[in-house]
Amino acid sequence: MSARPQEATQAQKPAAVESTQEPSRTALPRGFRFAATACGLRRKDRLDLALISSDVPAVAAGVFTKNLVKAAPVLLCQEHLRASGRAMRAIVVNSGNANCATGPDGLKASRTTAVSAARELDCRPEQVFVCSTGVIGVTLPVERILAALPALARARDNRPGNFTDVTRAIMTTDTRPKWAAASCRIAGETVRLLGCAKGAGMIHPQMATMLAYLLTDAAIPQPLLQRALREVSSRTFNSITVDGDTSTNDTALLLANGASGCRPIRGGRAFRSFTGALEKVCRALALAIVGDGEGASRVIEIEVRGAPTTREAEQVARTIAGSPLVKTALAGADPNWGRILAAAGRAGVAFDPEHAEITMAGMRVYRRGRALPFDEHAAHERLLRNVVPIVMDLKRGRAGARIWTCDFTADYVHINASYRT
Amino acid sequence: MSARPQEATQAQKPAAVESTQEPSRTALPRGFRFAATACGLRRKDRLDLALISSDVPAVAAGVFTKNLVKAAPVLLCQEHLRASGRAMRAIVVNSGNANCATGPDGLKASRTTAVSAARELDCRPEQVFVCSTGVIGVTLPVERILAALPALARARDNRPGNFTDVTRAIMTTDTRPKWAAASCRIAGETVRLLGCAKGAGMIHPQMATMLAYLLTDAAIPQPLLQRALREVSSRTFNSITVDGDTSTNDTALLLANGASGCRPIRGGRAFRSFTGALEKVCRALALAIVGDGEGASRVIEIEVRGAPTTREAEQVARTIAGSPLVKTALAGADPNWGRILAAAGRAGVAFDPEHAEITMAGMRVYRRGRALPFDEHAAHERLLRNVVPIVMDLKRGRAGARIWTCDFTADYVHINASYRT
Repeated sequence: MSARPQEATQAQKPAAVESTQEPSRTALPRGFRFAATACGLRRKDRLDLALISSDVPAVAAGVFTKNLVKAAPVLLCQEHLRASGRAMRAIVVNSGNANCATGPDGLKASRTTAVSAARELDCRPEQVFVCSTGVIGVTLPVERILAALPALARARDNRPGNFTDVTRAIMTTDTRPKWAAASCRIAGETVRLLGCAKGAGMIHPQMATMLAYLLTDAAIPQPLLQRALREVSSRTFNSITVDGDTSTNDTALLLANGASGCRPIRGGRAFRSFTGALEKVCRALALAIVGDGEGASRVIEIEVRGAPTTREAEQVARTIAGSPLVKTALAGADPNWGRILAAAGRAGVAFDPEHAEITMAGMRVYRRGRALPFDEHAAHERLLRNVVPIVMDLKRGRAGARIWTCDFTADYVHINASYRT
Repeated sequence: MSARPQEATQAQKPAAVESTQEPSRTALPRGFRFAATACGLRRKDRLDLALISSDVPAVAAGVFTKNLVKAAPVLLCQEHLRASGRAMRAIVVNSGNANCATGPDGLKASRTTAVSAARELDCRPEQVFVCSTGVIGVTLPVERILAALPALARARDNRPGNFTDVTRAIMTTDTRPKWAAASCRIAGETVRLLGCAKGAGMIHPQMATMLAYLLTDAAIPQPLLQRALREVSSRTFNSITVDGDTSTNDTALLLANGASGCRPIRGGRAFRSFTGALEKVCRALALAIVGDGEGASRVIEIEVRGAPTTREAEQVARTIAGSPLVKTALAGADPNWGRILAAAGRAGVAFDPEHAEITMAGMRVYRRGRALPFDEHAAHERLLRNVVPIVMDLKRGRAGARIWTCDFTADYVHINASYRT
């Protein structure tokens, strides 16, 4: 298994990544083609419509927002996944409009998009996923998408530049495109994985979407593919939080077209190897999303250990990660462990504060019910780093969980308070 | 029942209140005395220690933080309430130090304070409540409190100025003292209620406390008094939220000393009348706390209607009130109803988004699954007011709930991110 170093680094040093970087030709899974264009949903000449297609029908898996309020394209994706999850051909994505809370016309717009794309690609509409990201509650000018689709289909190519155009077309307030690649060996053959995503939290007024597209040329049955995506998502995409607001459009899709020619993955070592590579890609994308939160200055990794169950560990980690007091303190690189303790105390999980321990950026700061002496200046310096690990040990069991978030800066407020004009 | 108009106004027009205001002498419940001093826990000459005493043993009720991490004085208050809740004599409060996460010495410090105060007041230590507010995790220099107690006990008086000194001594980052008064008639006699509180959310680094003290000269048995406080707290103190962070020191105490000479309240109309006056005081204090959140520019009242149960209505209201995206939009007076809908959708309560309705500052903005046209400029103007009501009707039942919060401004982040120097 290998992952290009710059992707792994991307999440940890957000500012250092050049948006002009693109994956090498050999990193692209075989049998996929890409195209992007500016169809007029966003300001002039800004890429806002993308098409990913597989030359042959691909097995597909998907995970979607758990929000009760689901955008029309999410409903359509779920329907098409059920109908033809073993033979998907394409993904159409637009930015600039979420097509959410748009009434019956919204679903009709997504459906029409699938029909048009299917005509261009010579497949059935159910073989096309349709996604949207952008403003909520504004009617999608679908005619602009329909008008652009024929040329977009013709422009498809398997060049790295075409792929990076797609990564740019799905951006909303992201400051840079996010992609990651990995590969693994299945029965002596190389299988490639490539993913791209757009930001979740710290989002612009009325933008509310995390989108992730994962492509592989592995051959794998649908139930196994779905299991791999579900398991990996829970440890990556579902283990990040920015502001606690679950979006109405969250979608992660994984397409496996078998074009590598490798032996089908049936389980065992091959499945573990594939899942490992998938997790590498998804974690890189998840951390890139957290690190690119608007206003965010650093990534916070919250690990809870010593819990009776994983569920309880996760609950405590999520409560700490969701505390505005913890997150604002970390924006100021303030080793304010009292807030971490107080947040854990309201998580609804039983533990004895007298026995718990807290470590911030490698410095033990709380133990046996009281503060441990530490050098405030040194702690401040450590908390200024790009990735800050916080460990809370509940000393009640063996289970643990890890959640990634970012700090909470004044810029977040400035961006999200700005009146739409 | 009557409440002084300026108190009722206090929460709604935070900036308009003069901190020099004090209650009239007749508004003070009989048989209580007050004193405050600067004992050196905070910067020089800043009031930081307060004493409230009842001339005769008072029946007492208390509600405390549900945080698993409880400060030492909270544990002591609970112990003393159990031991002599029918005969309490005094409350000692210090600011500048929360006496939380301070190990066994912390509880010892609170206990010693009660013993010393009891000696001065000629009562048993169990008849004294002890409270602290301020920094977490720093040893309380209790000797300064002990040294100040004798003079503090001698300085007690029932003058309004002494009471307002108490309201100032319990402040931490509050920008002004918070108090409210009301009265009601019990069997033809006037009973007085007086309360003071200090701020909860939007709190300074390591400050983590809401404290409220409620005094009445009514005569009422302990179980009824506790019931009144519990019921009223759930609709007032427990219906406000600033940043979702439950403090380790939250305490509300209610003392009834019967000094009005009125007939004891046994239930029925007298109890309802008393509870009504209590709710008036507690709501004024709760709204004053929300309105005084550091950085807060306005109070947001979130009402959820049409829920199957009160519990579900409250759950949706709390989720909306806790959403940073909703709160930052309101800081910018942005009528961003999509965020309200998305927050409600993740509250874990079943409802049909197609049937729900959202009204912001009196303007219906969402109905039947889509946006209603509204004048953006007019909406913006309305959202700039001091109190902004938001109503979400789930159209699924008859239950409702109301939660108060404040907007989320960049100042909140600046205050809470500042490194302790």
